Amino acid sequence: MAVIGASSDPTKIGGRPIHHLRDAGFTGAIYPINPHRDEVQGIPALRSLDDVPGEIDLAIVAVPTGAVLDAVTACAGKGVKVAILFSAGFAEMGPDGAALQEQLVQVAGAAGMRLLGPNCIGAASGEIGAIATFAFAVQLPKPEGPLPRVALVSQSGAIGGHSVAAALPRGFQFDPWVTTGNEADIDVADCVAYLAMDDSVSAIAVYMEGCRSGERLKAALDIAFQRRKPVIMLKAGESDVGAAAAASHTASLVGSNQAYDALFHRYNVCRVGSITELVQMSYALAVGRLPAGRRLGILTGSGGGGILAADAASVSGLEVPPLPAAAQERLKAIWSAASVVNPIDTTAQVTNDPALLSSFLDVVLSEGDFDVVLLFLTYIGMRRPWSDNVVESLRKVRAAHPDATVMVSMLGTDDVLRDVRALGMPLFEELGDAVTVTARLGRLAENFTVRPEPEGWSGRTVRRLGPGEARTESSAKRLLSDIGIPVAREVLVTSAEDAARAAEEIGGAVAMKVESPDVLHKSEAGGVVLDVASPDEAAAAYDRITGAVRSAVPDADIHGVLVAEMVTGGVETILGIQNDASLGATVVFGLGGIFVEVLGDVSCRLAPIGVEEAEAMIREVKGFDLLDGARGRPRCDVPALADALSKLSFFAADNPDVLDSIDINPFIVLPEGQGAVAVDALVARRAAAH
Amino acid sequence: MAVIGASSDPTKIGGRPIHHLRDAGFTGAIYPINPHRDEVQGIPALRSLDDVPGEIDLAIVAVPTGAVLDAVTACAGKGVKVAILFSAGFAEMGPDGAALQEQLVQVAGAAGMRLLGPNCIGAASGEIGAIATFAFAVQLPKPEGPLPRVALVSQSGAIGGHSVAAALPRGFQFDPWVTTGNEADIDVADCVAYLAMDDSVSAIAVYMEGCRSGERLKAALDIAFQRRKPVIMLKAGESDVGAAAAASHTASLVGSNQAYDALFHRYNVCRVGSITELVQMSYALAVGRLPAGRRLGILTGSGGGGILAADAASVSGLEVPPLPAAAQERLKAIWSAASVVNPIDTTAQVTNDPALLSSFLDVVLSEGDFDVVLLFLTYIGMRRPWSDNVVESLRKVRAAHPDATVMVSMLGTDDVLRDVRALGMPLFEELGDAVTVTARLGRLAENFTVRPEPEGWSGRTVRRLGPGEARTESSAKRLLSDIGIPVAREVLVTSAEDAARAAEEIGGAVAMKVESPDVLHKSEAGGVVLDVASPDEAAAAYDRITGAVRSAVPDADIHGVLVAEMVTGGVETILGIQNDASLGATVVFGLGGIFVEVLGDVSCRLAPIGVEEAEAMIREVKGFDLLDGARGRPRCDVPALADALSKLSFFAADNPDVLDSIDINPFIVLPEGQGAVAVDALVARRAAAH
Repeated sequence: MAVIGASSDPTKIGGRPIHHLRDAGFTGAIYPINPHRDEVQGIPALRSLDDVPGEIDLAIVAVPTGAVLDAVTACAGKGVKVAILFSAGFAEMGPDGAALQEQLVQVAGAAGMRLLGPNCIGAASGEIGAIATFAFAVQLPKPEGPLPRVALVSQSGAIGGHSVAAALPRGFQFDPWVTTGNEADIDVADCVAYLAMDDSVSAIAVYMEGCRSGERLKAALDIAFQRRKPVIMLKAGESDVGAAAAASHTASLVGSNQAYDALFHRYNVCRVGSITELVQMSYALAVGRLPAGRRLGILTGSGGGGILAADAASVSGLEVPPLPAAAQERLKAIWSAASVVNPIDTTAQVTNDPALLSSFLDVVLSEGDFDVVLLFLTYIGMRRPWSDNVVESLRKVRAAHPDATVMVSMLGTDDVLRDVRALGMPLFEELGDAVTVTARLGRLAENFTVRPEPEGWSGRTVRRLGPGEARTESSAKRLLSDIGIPVAREVLVTSAEDAARAAEEIGGAVAMKVESPDVLHKSEAGGVVLDVASPDEAAAAYDRITGAVRSAVPDADIHGVLVAEMVTGGVETILGIQNDASLGATVVFGLGGIFVEVLGDVSCRLAPIGVEEAEAMIREVKGFDLLDGARGRPRCDVPALADALSKLSFFAADNPDVLDSIDINPFIVLPEGQGAVAVDALVARRAAAH
Repeated sequence: MAVIGASSDPTKIGGRPIHHLRDAGFTGAIYPINPHRDEVQGIPALRSLDDVPGEIDLAIVAVPTGAVLDAVTACAGKGVKVAILFSAGFAEMGPDGAALQEQLVQVAGAAGMRLLGPNCIGAASGEIGAIATFAFAVQLPKPEGPLPRVALVSQSGAIGGHSVAAALPRGFQFDPWVTTGNEADIDVADCVAYLAMDDSVSAIAVYMEGCRSGERLKAALDIAFQRRKPVIMLKAGESDVGAAAAASHTASLVGSNQAYDALFHRYNVCRVGSITELVQMSYALAVGRLPAGRRLGILTGSGGGGILAADAASVSGLEVPPLPAAAQERLKAIWSAASVVNPIDTTAQVTNDPALLSSFLDVVLSEGDFDVVLLFLTYIGMRRPWSDNVVESLRKVRAAHPDATVMVSMLGTDDVLRDVRALGMPLFEELGDAVTVTARLGRLAENFTVRPEPEGWSGRTVRRLGPGEARTESSAKRLLSDIGIPVAREVLVTSAEDAARAAEEIGGAVAMKVESPDVLHKSEAGGVVLDVASPDEAAAAYDRITGAVRSAVPDADIHGVLVAEMVTGGVETILGIQNDASLGATVVFGLGGIFVEVLGDVSCRLAPIGVEEAEAMIREVKGFDLLDGARGRPRCDVPALADALSKLSFFAADNPDVLDSIDINPFIVLPEGQGAVAVDALVARRAAAH
């Protein structure tokens, strides 16, 4: 390992890595490069990289911005495999910096050398003592003994170092960890993929601001998913709900934040909202076990704690089923004043009778039908003899139930907390945090069983969007019909007489709409008449529509007027496709009208999805009850809706290069067994594909 | 102070209070009562309370359940002012225990003695060393020096003790604190009122599960409000959204949880969701300052931290305005690589150049237009020399800006955290927590300026609900009209001919509805016909309605049929009154149809409210945009709507004893300037008032 810009001062950025490497017992060779010194921190220094006798695996570049290109060029010349660039002042500073950064990439790429950074704080792997960082987080005092660990990838150096520091008091460590900075070359996706393939890594925590390539990120997350390796994700920029500038309707509904949620949903990535949550989830994965599901038993010595835990469980989506009756009786026999259903409350008697905790816990673990048992023991761990009693009780219980998933919330002294953690029982000061983490662990465990690829995807016939296809409403609907999505009956007519005839054929009231690739806002142009009740009215409406559109959009190429059945008696929904700039095609579902327009109540998935996943996303919107027979309404044909969403998503996934968006609005879902119908549709192409 | 059931063992429940009192230097007399001992913990013991020479202010009762009544009787006989009952086994155990508890209340009440408990852990006031508790939380090691303090009231002993313990490591204390247990006599409201009147108490933290008297709780919170004393409230049972069993429509929408929210909103009580949040808010109030508002400046050395802070601020409703241009230039002159808008980022350079922090902070505090400045300094406080530099910088800044509200998020060693706190800068490990607390402090500060009593309330003419009034739809609407709420034009007719005449008079389409106190579900009984287009149709509809209702509800007393104008072109809303069993009349607002029915999207206030507060609650519902001209709709007459809500709330507040609920559904709000109209109304009386 070479350090270019090596400093004799172990507190300087160029001095710290050497100090850290020696501290960590790195056994490989260290070559300080410094033209002005003979030795650096007791190691012989070399004037230049060329003086290094043999190959260099890793070069750390800790020089001023202006000297980085020369250093990288030297590394490339020497055949260095990877260079870590600490220096800032590149793409993050604007166009000039970006140009300089691009030069680094060119030089490295030509030599087959990988770059980490610039503007990063490096990486560290404790296993081999390879502490290639200037972050002082690696020098903080550690709890004794081998620490359980979780890997960490952070785009931000500060958040990375902060997380590394925050892990230690909790009795675990982030290791290996890597920060990617400006990601001139190596990015978060590279690191996640690498760590997912490393058998010694059990879980991966990630801090990410954006991604350079959605496809590579997907591939990386897929590796982790296939290997059932939990990924905990803190994605910054949550409040940036995306620009509303895009042309289509769904574009303004699906900010890139929702596309990221769709991505994370697909690969069972656990998205968290803060550094503390990132650290807490990592801690629980390092110290504890993944529960089998979300059935929670609550055992406490505080009635109030039981209520708070039940409140938190309800918010988090955990189930709190009752203890079986026989077990309830057994607990009552031990202490008659206890509450024994769930939450189970020993009462404060637990502080008088130390045996109560282990006897209750034993019954709950043996006979309760729970995936996780949560103990809330208030501040009992803060003072002897109570704390000793608790630790002893938990030891006994762990010996009898070695595989039980037990979470603990308690205040305690450092030694008590350490003893409890050593039993594989993750410990949280805040009860609500213990519940939230438990719920997230349960969801992680459940969703590893969901396959990311939908049924029918492999071996399907790919249907491509043709060059001239779907440029008008009627041709868009023909396309939908062709891919298996039902559309309203309609006829394109070019005269008032034909309009009357079409209305007669269709029967009942009809809707009439101008057909023209040049009229995007048909209603505003006078191009739509609804509830046309008779053939005569249809003839009159034909003339009215064509007249209005001709005066509103004089140059419009009018193909005719669509005469379509009026679909009534169903619930209006919106199905959409939106191609996210980095993550690719997403499929979007919402209830029509105000639900989407006023509340933005939509669900979103990466395309493609199967019908099962489609049904899950349908059930996810807040207004789902409207489709499910709320307040005496008929239940709607949700299977037909799910089928359409799935087919739409397949088409989107087969045309990511040409499709910008599809809006089917409204897609009317009829009562159960009666199907669903697309009434209007708009297909937009990517700018390059026009 | 007497301790009945005094024990020589300082770890036993009867021994701990004496131990604690002596530890705390209590200077009053302590009388251990124990018939079997001559001395207890070095203090002469007395055989019975009667042997005490002189008056007893406070008696602690620490005896088995079965001996409590005798002890309380003895206290009453001796003229004890207050007895604290530790013992459990009363109302919390069911009817027998409740009966026993009632006996205690009778005995104490007859003697004018107040009771705290039973089933509580007591109370403590550090100022006079009156540590009347068996909780070992009072014995935990405290940080040195006088600790800033906040008062605490907890219904649960365990949560109370836990909070007391959790405060200490944060460098503040809960003091005085009191736990109320079963609240046989003294309850949370008593304690809040008392503490609100104590000038030495600056803020009050409360854990509450339920309240015995809404009126007394309101009175207590009103005292705190009038004295601008922040109340932080952890109300358990949040997930219990109330039973749907009540008769009226709004009853199922407003669980008692929402009534509590309305109560807390009125008295500017800050509701939190966990013990940690209770402790954190108390900590911020103890250590820091109430900011003037919600304009947040963010200063950090981490770009990622800036993004996370901005995300959290957006979620919390804080504003993040830019630094003025001149100040931005000044910062750029200090360090050109900095981000200077807001979030302001010194970059990691802050670890190389210690002066950067104070010079940046000085500019931000002097020239930024912020109510609060939040510093995020990652883990810089964990290691020298960086931690020393930070503390020195912050000292310098505090000296120059003694009144600035500064929040800090940083990891640090205990001594560093203590030093920063001593500067009056509340410190949080988690950035998101710092932001959430800041937002809550800002809201607290802003809302102390809102008067709880609406304009026009004092001096109004009280309008009582008459005994036979409002038992049918039309008479309910007459009542509304009488209290100033506009209703649709309508005529009650008793023949087909009159129906035709009424339809002609009203003009346009009309709605017809059966008028009968015996038909609650008019549509189901065939009692409603809408869109009646002509006088002839009205005559026919009259016969159809009366015939259908007669066969559906044979015994119904049919007063006739209402012929009413069809109101079109507005937005349907629902106005309601719901009398909460403990908190009294609440006024409820929601958008009509699916918003309320499917989404439960309602807002709620305690009655009465003025028009300003009514407008605030209208704006609070998620679908407000529908009234505000969303997607090209006309803007609605929100002032007319607010006026109706306020008038309705006045009426509700004047009739809490007789009213159970009122539903005005729909209340149609017309476009701006055109008013609003009640189309249907139902008034339900309290069971006792029928």
